[in-house]
Amino acid sequence: MPKILVVGGNAAGMTAASRARRLDPRAEITVIEKTPFISYSTCGIPYFLAGDVRSDDLLSFTPGTLKSERSIDAHVNVEVASILPSRKRVTARRIDTGEKLSFSFDRLLLATGVRPRLPDIPGTSLANVHTVTTLDDAVRLEGPLEVAHRVSIVGAGYVGLEMAESLRSLGKEVTIFESGAHVLSSVDPDMARIIEYELLRHRVSLRTGSPVQALVGPEPVTGVKARGVLGVHPTDLVLIDTGVLPNTTLAEEAGIRTGDTGGVVVDEYMETNVPGVFAAGNCAESFCFIRRKPVLHYLGTVAAKQGRVAGDNLTGRRQKFRGALGTTVLKVFDLAVGRTGLNLAEAAAEGIPTVSVRIEALDRAGYRADAKKIWVKLIADRSSRRVIGAQAVGYGDVSKRIDVAATAMMASATVDAITELDLGYTPPYSSLWDPLHVAAQALLKKL
Amino acid sequence: MPKILVVGGNAAGMTAASRARRLDPRAEITVIEKTPFISYSTCGIPYFLAGDVRSDDLLSFTPGTLKSERSIDAHVNVEVASILPSRKRVTARRIDTGEKLSFSFDRLLLATGVRPRLPDIPGTSLANVHTVTTLDDAVRLEGPLEVAHRVSIVGAGYVGLEMAESLRSLGKEVTIFESGAHVLSSVDPDMARIIEYELLRHRVSLRTGSPVQALVGPEPVTGVKARGVLGVHPTDLVLIDTGVLPNTTLAEEAGIRTGDTGGVVVDEYMETNVPGVFAAGNCAESFCFIRRKPVLHYLGTVAAKQGRVAGDNLTGRRQKFRGALGTTVLKVFDLAVGRTGLNLAEAAAEGIPTVSVRIEALDRAGYRADAKKIWVKLIADRSSRRVIGAQAVGYGDVSKRIDVAATAMMASATVDAITELDLGYTPPYSSLWDPLHVAAQALLKKL
Repeated sequence: MPKILVVGGNAAGMTAASRARRLDPRAEITVIEKTPFISYSTCGIPYFLAGDVRSDDLLSFTPGTLKSERSIDAHVNVEVASILPSRKRVTARRIDTGEKLSFSFDRLLLATGVRPRLPDIPGTSLANVHTVTTLDDAVRLEGPLEVAHRVSIVGAGYVGLEMAESLRSLGKEVTIFESGAHVLSSVDPDMARIIEYELLRHRVSLRTGSPVQALVGPEPVTGVKARGVLGVHPTDLVLIDTGVLPNTTLAEEAGIRTGDTGGVVVDEYMETNVPGVFAAGNCAESFCFIRRKPVLHYLGTVAAKQGRVAGDNLTGRRQKFRGALGTTVLKVFDLAVGRTGLNLAEAAAEGIPTVSVRIEALDRAGYRADAKKIWVKLIADRSSRRVIGAQAVGYGDVSKRIDVAATAMMASATVDAITELDLGYTPPYSSLWDPLHVAAQALLKKL
Repeated sequence: MPKILVVGGNAAGMTAASRARRLDPRAEITVIEKTPFISYSTCGIPYFLAGDVRSDDLLSFTPGTLKSERSIDAHVNVEVASILPSRKRVTARRIDTGEKLSFSFDRLLLATGVRPRLPDIPGTSLANVHTVTTLDDAVRLEGPLEVAHRVSIVGAGYVGLEMAESLRSLGKEVTIFESGAHVLSSVDPDMARIIEYELLRHRVSLRTGSPVQALVGPEPVTGVKARGVLGVHPTDLVLIDTGVLPNTTLAEEAGIRTGDTGGVVVDEYMETNVPGVFAAGNCAESFCFIRRKPVLHYLGTVAAKQGRVAGDNLTGRRQKFRGALGTTVLKVFDLAVGRTGLNLAEAAAEGIPTVSVRIEALDRAGYRADAKKIWVKLIADRSSRRVIGAQAVGYGDVSKRIDVAATAMMASATVDAITELDLGYTPPYSSLWDPLHVAAQALLKKL
């Protein structure tokens, strides 16, 4: 009866544990989780904080239901202290009581996720300065948020933008400070500008090109000092969304290799340099399908797919992870935003000669009252004609176009192939030539 | 200055003419159209008849705007009488005046579309018995429809189902007679049953397995006699949607070859057996991307793509049409329906060993109030593991899943590749594992 031990009970870890259970009904499977929660929707956190859903709704399993439905043991509030690969053992301690624990394994999966990367400025440890990386963070934020009126968000990434919408829906005054020239650096500036307009339209104060220099106290935080902003911007609460870092300390201490990206190095089977020890999810390196090299994706979707592959291989199969595009969609007020593959800056960093186009189109037959505008951008490798990136924003159906583009890109489609896609058309849902066709046709003219 | 002549001024013909104009600003381009209208949205007809849009909204061009904006001459209400390929000439007559006309060409495109295939029963030529193949048909139907209360639809294809919704929205009593056991033969019975439930839920009387035996007069039509239906079903108006046939008479008389499908035979450049004479759209054979053989697609999307290729080649380029999947989406009341590739019956007819699965899923994060149920079916070739068909119906986002499946299928994706697709996730638009992933994972277990 093989012993499978999983460190980290969220997207990658839980997918792997469940997959392993399905493939091997007899394995002894144990999950160790540092926070009180397992198996929750991290992406649902902004909607929980907006009061749209309850925290329970975000949980797929509790340790109790995981045990009864899947025969998997989960230990929550337990922090791993060390991994001893040669002895096939992990030491841990119960966070509430300090009790020391020890787990043995035949195969181990590290799915330790990420921790916030805090900016190197004074004041980040003041009261009412929060990050929202885990559901536990979100639960702890609920109370302070209720009494705060003026909220400052440091960093305009996915979480920052989604939180801006949630906080506005709660009636808060919201200011976003972003060090870069534009919000959401994963899309190109011409697309980011549309998002910025949407934020302003919903009365979010936006301070781009304004790196925060200090969070000001005394306890709790009362203000934000940022470059280009006169004086101190008064605030009741600060949310920091300036990125995350893979949790790799345990791995490194155990002699498990990390890469230049900062993530745990894995082969295509999600196995680390230590045989029998796997890593998956946001703590591990992912593989960029376009650049053909290790990257960090920091996405629940990619984490789940890696977890599935790891679950296969934890039970002795030999399944490969083929890589991902970093496909992401998000909602910013009434605007849908999506991107996949490389943006222009990322392509330039790789030295890829690009050609790109942005078109404006309606998401369904133009004569319909419910037709809504979307902007679609396609980026191709000028020499191979291959599509290497797609972005879309708009008030209509963006998610479909991004998923279709991603699907084509995972088949290494050329711009020509996009023009030939046989997509479905009926006036209530689409147009005779889809916006993606139109974009590809426009791009062909430049090739 | 090459003379390009196009017979038929709708999806294929107009796309070809416009494309040719763009590629060759100096060509003399003429379009001949039998009906009063060019360049209209055939798929919009049910919404025009429902009163949702005006007939003008469906028109992209009139002969006047086509001339002024694209320098293309269009002759409407002109019927071609004969094609004389050896003399590079077409004879025609003006329908209203009978005036005889003659057109010369260097290159000719036949885009003559389809005509209704009427059932071989008595009464189809009675007053108030209509087909809706062209916008002209629809305009002629408006008056009779206004005074009719009880409408019978013969045939439950795309048009029949869309018309049922339009007519119910106008408060009509609607009965559908379908000779087959289920509506919409292009989807499998398990999917059709969900559509049938939706029709009943909206109080459409449904008579499946009831071939119509006669339309009963005296003038105008007053009843429908159908097998399994006692007596004569009283009606004020009958719409016939029992399929269409390619308009090939002109071609055949000119020695242009038609195939076993009944459509004009074309090579991959959309050229017929007569050099310099091309055919595109619903009068021509299409090419099934899965079966690798000529088929008839009867879809505006495919017609437009063929028209684009024909437009290229009319100006001397050598562009190929790669084929299509027959991707179709339609709206039946609150239900979205989509299909692409082969259904089980079509696969069986080809002798393809299939394995298929149907799953039920929510179209976005399950904890959201706006999450809606959809059913997704995937069909794979058991030996190659390749996905050869996809169907989806449901109250949520079906169109996205069908387009993603079609995109994957045009890259000859295996079931395994579908599980690996990097699709975008955010709770308002999707789920961590898309319904397509879930379906592919379920199908893998059967392979």
